This record gives sequence, structure tokens and C-alpha cells, in this order.
Amino acid sequence: MDEISGKWYLETVFPDLVMMLRVQKVLYSGKTEYQNVEVLESVVFGRSLVLDGKTQSTERDEHIYHEGLVQPAMLMHPQPRTVFIGGGGEGGTLREVLSHKSVERVVMLDLDQEVVDLCRRYLPQHHQGSFDDPRVELLHQDARAYLENCPQQFDVMVMDLVDPLEGGTAYLLYTDQYYRIAKSKLNPGGILVTQSGPAGLLAHQECFTTIHNTLQGVFNNVRGCQVHIPAFQTLWGFNIASDAELPKLDEPEKLDGLIAQRVNKPLKFYDGESHTNMFSLPKFLRQSMQNENRVNRDEAPVFMA
Amino acid sequence: MDEISGKWYLETVFPDLVMMLRVQKVLYSGKTEYQNVEVLESVVFGRSLVLDGKTQSTERDEHIYHEGLVQPAMLMHPQPRTVFIGGGGEGGTLREVLSHKSVERVVMLDLDQEVVDLCRRYLPQHHQGSFDDPRVELLHQDARAYLENCPQQFDVMVMDLVDPLEGGTAYLLYTDQYYRIAKSKLNPGGILVTQSGPAGLLAHQECFTTIHNTLQGVFNNVRGCQVHIPAFQTLWGFNIASDAELPKLDEPEKLDGLIAQRVNKPLKFYDGESHTNMFSLPKFLRQSMQNENRVNRDEAPVFMA
Amino acid sequence: MDEISGKWYLETVFPDLVMMLRVQKVLYSGKTEYQNVEVLESVVFGRSLVLDGKTQSTERDEHIYHEGLVQPAMLMHPQPRTVFIGGGGEGGTLREVLSHKSVERVVMLDLDQEVVDLCRRYLPQHHQGSFDDPRVELLHQDARAYLENCPQQFDVMVMDLVDPLEGGTAYLLYTDQYYRIAKSKLNPGGILVTQSGPAGLLAHQECFTTIHNTLQGVFNNVRGCQVHIPAFQTLWGFNIASDAELPKLDEPEKLDGLIAQRVNKPLKFYDGESHTNMFSLPKFLRQSMQNENRVNRDEAPVFMA
Amino acid sequence: MDEISGKWYLETVFPDLVMMLRVQKVLYSGKTEYQNVEVLESVVFGRSLVLDGKTQSTERDEHIYHEGLVQPAMLMHPQPRTVFIGGGGEGGTLREVLSHKSVERVVMLDLDQEVVDLCRRYLPQHHQGSFDDPRVELLHQDARAYLENCPQQFDVMVMDLVDPLEGGTAYLLYTDQYYRIAKSKLNPGGILVTQSGPAGLLAHQECFTTIHNTLQGVFNNVRGCQVHIPAFQTLWGFNIASDAELPKLDEPEKLDGLIAQRVNKPLKFYDGESHTNMFSLPKFLRQSMQNENRVNRDEAPVFMA
Repeated sequence: MDEISGKWYLETVFPDLVMMLRVQKVLYSGKTEYQNVEVLESVVFGRSLVLDGKTQSTERDEHIYHEGLVQPAMLMHPQPRTVFIGGGGEGGTLREVLSHKSVERVVMLDLDQEVVDLCRRYLPQHHQGSFDDPRVELLHQDARAYLENCPQQFDVMVMDLVDPLEGGTAYLLYTDQYYRIAKSKLNPGGILVTQSGPAGLLAHQECFTTIHNTLQGVFNNVRGCQVHIPAFQTLWGFNIASDAELPKLDEPEKLDGLIAQRVNKPLKFYDGESHTNMFSLPKFLRQSMQNENRVNRDEAPVFMA
Repeated sequence: MDEISGKWYLETVFPDLVMMLRVQKVLYSGKTEYQNVEVLESVVFGRSLVLDGKTQSTERDEHIYHEGLVQPAMLMHPQPRTVFIGGGGEGGTLREVLSHKSVERVVMLDLDQEVVDLCRRYLPQHHQGSFDDPRVELLHQDARAYLENCPQQFDVMVMDLVDPLEGGTAYLLYTDQYYRIAKSKLNPGGILVTQSGPAGLLAHQECFTTIHNTLQGVFNNVRGCQVHIPAFQTLWGFNIASDAELPKLDEPEKLDGLIAQRVNKPLKFYDGESHTNMFSLPKFLRQSMQNENRVNRDEAPVFMA
Repeated sequence: MDEISGKWYLETVFPDLVMMLRVQKVLYSGKTEYQNVEVLESVVFGRSLVLDGKTQSTERDEHIYHEGLVQPAMLMHPQPRTVFIGGGGEGGTLREVLSHKSVERVVMLDLDQEVVDLCRRYLPQHHQGSFDDPRVELLHQDARAYLENCPQQFDVMVMDLVDPLEGGTAYLLYTDQYYRIAKSKLNPGGILVTQSGPAGLLAHQECFTTIHNTLQGVFNNVRGCQVHIPAFQTLWGFNIASDAELPKLDEPEKLDGLIAQRVNKPLKFYDGESHTNMFSLPKFLRQSMQNENRVNRDEAPVFMA
Repeated sequence: MDEISGKWYLETVFPDLVMMLRVQKVLYSGKTEYQNVEVLESVVFGRSLVLDGKTQSTERDEHIYHEGLVQPAMLMHPQPRTVFIGGGGEGGTLREVLSHKSVERVVMLDLDQEVVDLCRRYLPQHHQGSFDDPRVELLHQDARAYLENCPQQFDVMVMDLVDPLEGGTAYLLYTDQYYRIAKSKLNPGGILVTQSGPAGLLAHQECFTTIHNTLQGVFNNVRGCQVHIPAFQTLWGFNIASDAELPKLDEPEKLDGLIAQRVNKPLKFYDGESHTNMFSLPKFLRQSMQNENRVNRDEAPVFMA
């Protein structure tokens, strides 16, 4: 067999720029009530979850994404006990949250039960059994409707959503109005972190900078950060927001100590120096963040291209 | 989802010329003792069988291939009772052979039992239950070794093999030596037909013309023909050989009558006029056949590119 | 360099079915007043002309297309002296028309002068100097407007157009109304032939059968035929129409004699047997032609997919 | 025209992972004495230079690569006056070197004069006229042979080479033996920096870590750093080496001041915080650097996959 023949998965990562990944197996391919789902297996990335033609995470590098999304926000909080997770069907975000000894209760809402069931079945390396942890309450409802009626408050909220695509399931979880609802359910000193789309030179203005700016209209303090995710072919951004002061954690050795003290498993990507990398933003990103003045609103959301 | 993202199957159809087919489902993907196997499903072609990165046949157009391979040879014989099939794992060739009322017994040899089992399971539209016909004896052995020791004689032999690829399972079933063995097991008036690879302008000299020439060294009469198979992206060739005279069947209405008389099911592709099309060869093909002087021999086979 | 890296030309040949062709050189890439133009060079096909993302013809196989389009219609006419060509910018159609000793005058209309100039420069193997023949009048106007006001009559008209694409330049040259205009400019016994799009199993109903049916509403006699064009990845159709009887030319040796007598150069593809192949249509094509009842009208054209 | 049809450039970025970039124009495509060269133009990346099927740099993001390669090494030196550049045909490295007010003389060696000439012609946004600076001596010889016989010493050496590919032109400029030669031509306090291949999770062990380790065997101090280059689809690594202490430059504001003082043009990517990002390495990279024990030697080079 030549180098070309065979099964490939193609994904447009930016207009006119497409990734081709050779696929060994298609473990699942179907359509839920909400979205198209594929579970693929490749030599390069191991098992990966694809929703509506967008790679969500892969076995090979999901630790960069999930540690990068969860750990800084959790460690910036002095003692997170109650955590809210929006989305996160693969269970990797849940796994990272549960690694914190202080955590007593996690409410995870993923709209699409079928996706979560598929992840539990096909992505054991992602969730590593997290769904069975007794601290977890897993619900399949819209995160926003739930929060509006929720009597509980949370210390940390992690928004691990699909991108804000037009016609998608999540764009109303990236708006000013949503962030105000979420904030109302944070305990004093509470922290919200959200995945925020691509942060590389080509695409950081698609949604990263607007999410940052939208959060700045709602919270006193917002910090953006980025990691490189090979499966996404680009840098990827997160934004952390709070009305409280967000500690810088910019002394690597101290942070390494804090991790050792508060996290009950080894981390593969995140440590003191990786933190410094994540929060030292390239010049173009800082400039675009400063120049951004769009705000995501329910009535005028900024969609990802 | 954009027009590009998703699962595609790529196949090199000619050096530097690749087909990309969007795939809905991968029904099976694995490795047998002999080869890599994929069963794919696409909107364009329905279900298709791929062996070692080469599309063998698809639900959408397999009738062109299987009727084209089987029907002319069967109808050129006055009354085929015993038929030998080499290869043909999908069961389409078997189906066409069994459509002849005169057929009393078919011995089918496909080396790879797993492939046949997969076809029985995943390609019901191909075989349409043919494997269950009581006239069929299905064996999983090498066709050549079997024939060498076979006490039986046959009226028609249909060689429905993978292409003669270097390192493949079938190239020793395209040689002068093999054809001499096969001929020795034909009844008087017996006919052998073999799939013979691409017959379009680009690739007909890869193996079509050498198979034709090799057969001409063994049999008194050899006739080449061709059909267009969309899934192969090209014209495809067959060669029919016999020591007896091969009737031309060049009066379409007469041939339509013969079909009605001898075949017990409607044919979708083959009839009198399609026959004329198949056996009227484009000029380049006739010229290359005349100019061909290579002979496939066990010790020096001509491999497909 | 691996087998994959490099420049490729992709073309959707059918929805979800894409051809990838490795390209050596891009000789020209630009936009005229009417369309996007590319002149590519590949090992597989030599030089090719691409208009609006559709391959028009290639050095390697244009002879099949141009001989197949022109020669039967010319030879069905007893003595073609005046010929009208609509489209045909590459000059291959012109070359075939001029090969007929009887031809005294050719009027060729191609809307897009820039394309013709590019072909003259980059595709010498296509036109072989035909544009310099003193019998040729080359005009750059809309063929339909020209014919409406044309005082001349023609023996043969060859419509060598881009496909009837929505938003394209040519779909009004495939309609009932257009064919009536054209017919009014044919001499008694005159013949019109038009390229008619794909004629393979997958796509023959896109426009081949409707063009056939539309011509049948205007002319007494219409005959469809097909050739295999590797660069188009499919069989390709032509339709020949006349109010006069169209001779069958179905005796190959006689036709070979006629060619020798009337054509002043060797033909690479077309001869008696190739003619038989072209006009013996596969069963599915005949069935679809019989079942077709759509008519292309100016106000309701049938576009190619 | 659909989203797929058209000209694409494909590049294998990692085995089984291919980038497809839609191309507007192929400005140049040819073969020099040493390598295949393409100059492409795309909407995504503007003009790009491709050597032997590997993208070298693009108009859109070359500033990240060239500032990242040159500026830290230049600023770690107290006052670079004489600079040696190996490779760097596009002129971007030269441009960055010349931006330093202290620079009095640059010797640039690029083996392939044709490539440099093509870059001067087609990539004006890369070199921005740098080749005309009177401080520059441009030579077309093998860098290693030149250095061996060079009577001069340099303050900074910048190795801006193609990757160490088997059969390529540069792998002998990444070896222990070469680095010893280079070191012997550095002034006291002199600094060498070399491009070092991919530094992302997937491919950093292909050559980044071995180059780092090889340099550690030759120089007292070696520091690795990385940037994200969208056109390379990954993080990219550089290594800086010196027998002198390498200043950390880890106070962003101080570094911003130093840049303002020593560099005579605005920088688009590099500043104090980008420096911190570059030199804060992700955990996996640090671990692999620590675990690396391969040394590139002339007689046993480590090639890039």
C-alpha cells in the first residue's frame, strides 16, 4: 500500500488550511440529538473525539488541554470545595478537578448524554473512571437554564464547551448575559475559567479576544493564557475571571510546591515553568486583547469562523 | 460542517492521481491472515470492499463489473454446467454464475475465509444469498494448488482475483504456467475468463495487455473487452479465452433473446448493446494489444504498478 | 520528499468524490472578464486547461474528447463545407474540423478572448496552429447573439462549451430556444453536435439526458454517444442532431475507408471500431434517455450539479 | 466553484499528519543545483518559500521565526559587532541581525545562490532590502568549509539552516564536529544560535533535543527556547550556546528597554513578555532534554524524520 491510500480524517483548521490525519479505526460514527459524533483512532493521536467536524480532544495531547484549562484556575483559588463543570463530556476536565484534595462536590452538566456515554465507553484514557467518583453529580441539561434556577453556589466554574459556532449548542454560554448568571452563582472569591478557542497568530481574533473582553465587562479581574495543542494545529486559549484578586503564581518553585500539596496525582504537562509559559503571552495576543472592543451578547454573539 | 471536514477514503488510482471519497461509515477495518480489509459505506458508492488499499467493488456499480466479467463468458459457452470461480469473495461473481439455469455445480475457491465471511455479513446486496445455493461448494485454498490436484473438469472458469500486485496473493494466478494448469481442467469447448486490470488510456499497459498476450500463448482464441467502473475511475478489462471458437454475439437482439432464455433474473447492465460496447475496443487498446510481447511467467511476472 | 508533499490540483468530479492530481507546474493562473483560468502541467496529463475549477481538456487525452466530439458529426454529413464552432477555446475542436478536406470556411466564436489567447500561448499541442488556418474566422462574442443576426448558414455546428453551470457563461446555449435558433442557421441536411456532460453511471442524469431530450424536441433525429475521458474520471457524452437522417456508420471497415478519404491527418482515437464503441450505449444510459422528460428552457434550465 | 476544487499545497508535518494549504499562485517552481524550490502565494500565509517539500518561512509569520531566532541571541551578547549567518536565504535573519545598531559586519553564507536570488526577487517582504546593506558580505559556499579556513572571528553566529534531513544539504552543520569548528571562530563571549527543528509534543525528539545535547557537549552554557509558527503547524525550537554566561533577560520591562536601546526598528513578535514565553519551556520538553543522550556526529548524525 502506498503512503496515500487509506482512511483520512480532514478538518478545516482555518479557512483554506486543512489538516489530514491518517485514521486506523473509526470506533464510532453517528448522530445524537444535538450533534454529529465520531470517535477515531490514529497512530498520531490515539483516540480522538470529533463533534460536528471539530476535534475536541485526543488521547495523545488531551492532558495539555485539560490540565491547562483546569489546574491554574483551581490553584488560583485558595481552597476549592464545590466545582461546576459546563460541558466536558470526555471526562478529562472532571478528572483534573477531582485531583484536587479539597474538592467535595462537583456538578457536571453536559447537554448531550449520548456523547458522555460514548466517551465513557470509548475514551477510558480520558476520564480514567472519574464519572464513578462519589463526589460527582452528572446532569444532562442546558448549563444556563440549570444555573438560573440553581440554589447552590460554587467556588470554581469550568466551562469546557464546544466552540461558539453559529447554529451550535454552546454559543449562549459565552455571552455577557451568561457570565452574569454564572457570576451570581459563584461564592465570594469564586473563579470562572472558560475554554476560549484558538490563540495562535492566525485565528486568535475569532473568539479568544472577544471572550476576554466580554469577561472583563463582568468580572474585576480577567487573565488570558494559552497552550499549544498539536491536535488543534495551533495555540489554544483559556480565560480565567474573578472579582477577587487572581494570584500570579509566577514563582515556579513555589507553584510546584503548591501542586504537590494540593493535587493528588502526577501532572504530565502543568508545573511552575509551564505555568509561566502559559501566562506569558505573545505580543500579538496582548495587542489584540487591548484593541478588542466587541462584546458577546445573546442578541449579537461573536461566532467562531 | 464545511464541505471538506470529515472522513475520506483516498486511493491512488494511477501514480500521482488519487481519488478522495467521502465516507459515512467504516463498517469494518482489520487485517486477515492475507491482507488488510476495509468495508466502507459512502453516499456515492454505498458499501465497498477494499483489500490492501484497493477498492474491489461497490454496491453502486458492482453489477457492471460482475455482469461484465461473468455473463459474456457464460453466454459464449453453449451450456455451462460446471463452473470454477477463483477469488470472488464478495459473492457477486457467484450470483451471476448461478443466474444461469444450466449451471449444476460451482466450485468457488477464495483463499481468505475471513474476507468471505466479512462479505457475507456486510455485503448482502453483493451476494444476495448466493453462498447458500446448494449447487455451490466453497473452499478456502489456493486456487492453483487445488486445480493441480483436482480430478474434476469445468465448462467455465472465472478468475475474479485481486490485481497482480508485487507481494500480493494473486500474481501467480495470472501466469502462463497457471493458465496451462487451468486449461488442462477445462472440458472440451471450455472457456476461461479473467479480470484483467485497468483498460483506460492511462493504465491499460500495466497488466491488461500482458494478460491478453499471455493467454494468447496458451489458448487458440482470446478476446478482450472492457467496461467503465466508476469506483475504479477508469475502464476495466476482462479477457476471455478458449481453444474453441468464441461466438461473437454481435447481433444485439439475438443476444437479448439468448439472455432471456438462459438467465433467470433481470440483468442491470449487460444486454445486447452493452455487449457490443464492451467488445468494441478503443483504438489505443487494440494497438497496445497488438504491440504487446510480454508474457507473464511465474519466474518473471508483470506486476501492476 | 515523501509521496504526499507537493502541489496538487483537486477537483470535485461528483459530490463527495474528488480527484487529486499532482501538479508539476502552474503555467498560468488568473481571472478573465468571464472566468477563472488555470493552465496546469502534470506528469499524468501534460498540460491542462481548467476553467472555474473544472478541467476542460488535457494534453494526454484531449484527442479522445475532440475527435469524439467532431469526427462522427462531420462524417455523418455528406460534405461539410461551412462549420460553426461555439466555444472550443483550446483549438482542438478547430483542429479536428480543419482536418476535413471538404471544409472551406469555419466561424469560431469563443466569448472569452483571453482564454483563447492563453490557449494559443500555452497549449500548442492542442491547437497545433489551427488558429492560423486561412479558412478560420475567429470571433469573441456570444454565440447565441451572433447566430440570431447571422446571415450565413452552416453545414455543421459544433458546440464545444463549458458545462451548463448555474451562474456560468454557457447554460443558455443548451436550451430549447437556443437549439431552435441554431437549427434555423443550418443548411438543409445540416448537423449540430454538442458536448453534453458526463455519461457515466453516477452523473449521466445531470445534463446528458436532458440535452438529449431537449434536442429531440427540436430535431427529427438525435443520437447520443460517449467516450471515456481519463481526465474527467468518467464517460463523457455528446449528442448529434439533425432533421436529416443520420447515417449509422456501423460498418467499421467502411468507416475506416471514409475517414481515409475525407480526413487529411491520422486520427489517434477515432476509427470504425471506436465509433461502434461510442454509439453502443450502456443499458443504464439508454434507459435514462428513454425515461427523461425534462426540457432545458431559458426560463427553466437544468443545471449541472 | 466549490470549497475543495483548486490548487493545494500538501506537506507532511509529521508521519500520517498532512497540512493542506489552498494556494493562489505558484510564483516559482523549479530545481536548483541543490534542491527543489517553490515560491507559493496563499491567502493564509502570503508568500512562502518551500525547499524540498518543506515550508521554510511565510510572509504571514516569518517575523516570529526570524525575530525568535535572532533577537535573543543578539541581545544576550553585550555588543555584537561581527555576525556570521549560515543559511538564511530569505534574508529575514539578515534583516534582524542588521537591526542591531552595534553590528558592523555580517558574513552570510548560503550554499545555494539560486535560492537567494529567487528570494531577493520574490520575497521582498522577507528581506526588505537587507542584501543591499553595505555591512553585508554574501557568499555562496559551504559554511563549514568556509569557517575551517576563515581567519576572522565572530561575536554571534546564527545558523538558519534547512532541517538535518538525510540526503539534505545541511546535516553536517548540526554535528559535534561542526560546533567545535564554529566555536573556534567565536570571539571570547561569543554566542552561537541554531534553528533546531520542531519543539511540539509530537516531534521534539526528532532533532531538537539531540541538537541541544550535542551543543552541551561543546559549550559551557546552552539554552533552548521555542516559538509557535503557524506555517509549521507546531512549536519550533532554537538553541543558544556559549562558553560565557548567557544572561536570562527575565525581567520583561528591562528587556523592553534594552531592545529600545539597541534595535533600530520596531519588533512585531519579540519583546520582554514574548521572551519569557519563549524560554519557559513546557514540561515535556524539559524532560526530554534531560533524558536525551544522543549526540549528532558526522559519522552518525541524527536525521529528522
